[in-house]
Amino acid sequence: MKITIFPLRNFPLINPGDSLTEIIVEELRKIDLQNRDIIVIAHTILSKSENKVYDLNLITPSPFALQIGRMQGKDPRKIEVILRESSEIIRMNEKVLITATHHGFICANSGIDKSNTPGDTVISLPDDPDFSARQIRDEIKEKLHKNVAVIISDTFGRPLRVGTVNFAIGLAGINSLEDIRGKTDLFGYELRSTIIARVDEVAAAAGIVMGQADEGTPVIIVRGVDYSINDNSARELIREPENDVFR
Amino acid sequence: MKITIFPLRNFPLINPGDSLTEIIVEELRKIDLQNRDIIVIAHTILSKSENKVYDLNLITPSPFALQIGRMQGKDPRKIEVILRESSEIIRMNEKVLITATHHGFICANSGIDKSNTPGDTVISLPDDPDFSARQIRDEIKEKLHKNVAVIISDTFGRPLRVGTVNFAIGLAGINSLEDIRGKTDLFGYELRSTIIARVDEVAAAAGIVMGQADEGTPVIIVRGVDYSINDNSARELIREPENDVFR
Repeated sequence: MKITIFPLRNFPLINPGDSLTEIIVEELRKIDLQNRDIIVIAHTILSKSENKVYDLNLITPSPFALQIGRMQGKDPRKIEVILRESSEIIRMNEKVLITATHHGFICANSGIDKSNTPGDTVISLPDDPDFSARQIRDEIKEKLHKNVAVIISDTFGRPLRVGTVNFAIGLAGINSLEDIRGKTDLFGYELRSTIIARVDEVAAAAGIVMGQADEGTPVIIVRGVDYSINDNSARELIREPENDVFR
Repeated sequence: MKITIFPLRNFPLINPGDSLTEIIVEELRKIDLQNRDIIVIAHTILSKSENKVYDLNLITPSPFALQIGRMQGKDPRKIEVILRESSEIIRMNEKVLITATHHGFICANSGIDKSNTPGDTVISLPDDPDFSARQIRDEIKEKLHKNVAVIISDTFGRPLRVGTVNFAIGLAGINSLEDIRGKTDLFGYELRSTIIARVDEVAAAAGIVMGQADEGTPVIIVRGVDYSINDNSARELIREPENDVFR
C-alpha cells in the first residue's frame, strides 16, 4: 500500500452562506480525482458555510459565563457561546473548559474557534457533520461520477498526551472503526481487542498537510488507503460514558 | 506539500537479539532513501530485538495478579507481567487495566502485547525508545549519509474516543511538539493555544500502512512532511499529572 496526501491548492475563502458542496465539487474538477480517494475537510469551512458564526458584540453573557470568564481571565461572551454549544460540562478549572457538544463530542471550549474568522466573531462546530459529509459525497458521485469517502475533521486536545491531533467528527462512505478481532497475526494468533479508529488515523494524516495557521488548505485528498465502505457515523467514535473509565 | 507513505516491503522477521539497527539500515539500502524522510517503526520489532519477551511459563503470578486475573477472567501470568512493567495503576475495573509504564506512558496493560510473538510469550515496550530511535538515526546517517527522523510507535486506546490509533513513544531528529502560538491565522489573528502533536499525526499516518494483523510491515517511510528538527523526546508528549484534568 502506498498512500499519497495532498491539498486542494488555492482553495477559495468560504463565506457564510456559500455552498461548500458546490465549491468543493468545482475545485475537485481541477484534479484527477479517483475512486476511493478520501476527502478530508477542515470543519471550519463547513461551519462558515452553515453560518455557524457568532458575533460576540451581539452576545450577552449569563452570570455563570461571567463567573467562568473572571476565573479563567477570558472573554465572558466567548464563554457564553461555549456554554450555548454544550450539553454538559465535563471538566472545568482556572485554565480549561471541556464540554460535551450537542453531537456528543468532548472537546475544549465546545470546539469554538477564534482563528480564521473575520472581526469579533467565533465559529462553532457544524450542525451535523455526518449529514454534510454524506451530502458532499453524494454530490461528488452525481457530478464527478467518483465514489469517494468524506471526512470532516477538527483538531482535538487529548487526555494523557500533550498537543492537538486532527480527528474525525463527520464521515461518509468509510467505516468509522475497523474491527480486526478474529483476524490472525503473523503467528496465527487471534487478535482479541483491536478495533482501529482508521478514520482518525486518516484525519491525523491529513492534519499534517492541512496546517492550522495561514496555510489556507482546508481540503486534503488522501489516496491509496485500503478501507471498508460502510454508511456509518462519526458518532460511533464517541466512547459511551459507561464504557469510559476516564469520564 | 505532498506526502507519500509506504512500507519497507518483505521486512524480515525480527528475532530476540537481532541488531534491529543493522537490519533497518540494510533494508533501507533497497530504497531511494531521502534526506528528511521519517522512518516510523512499530515498537514490537524493537522490543523483540531487545529481548523484551516474557515466557509466561516462567512467570509466577503474585496474589494481587491472581486477584486481578480472576476479576477480569484473564491469564494471571500476563497480569503479573503487566504489573511488573508498570509504575502506577491509573484505572482498573472488570475489563480494563490501565497503567503508567516506567517511561511514563499511560496505556492499557502497560503496552504488553500478545500478538506477533511465537509460543506462550508476551512482549513489553522497549527499554528506552528515544535512545533506540537516536541510535537508528545516527546509524542511518553514518552508513547511508542521510539525515532522517525516526519515530518508534505503538497503538494506543484513548479516553473519550473509541478505537486505537498509532502514536509516538520514541523519536529522534524531529520536534515532539510544534508550537504555533504566535503565528498568525488567515486574518492576522494570533493563534493562542495551539501546540500540535505532529509526531503523533505522523505515527497515525504510518499506522494506516503498518497494519496490525498479518501485514508484516513494521517499518514505514513518511516522505514530504515539513517538520522542525530538534533533539527532543517522546516523553514531552506525556501530559504532566498536574496539568491533566482527566488523570
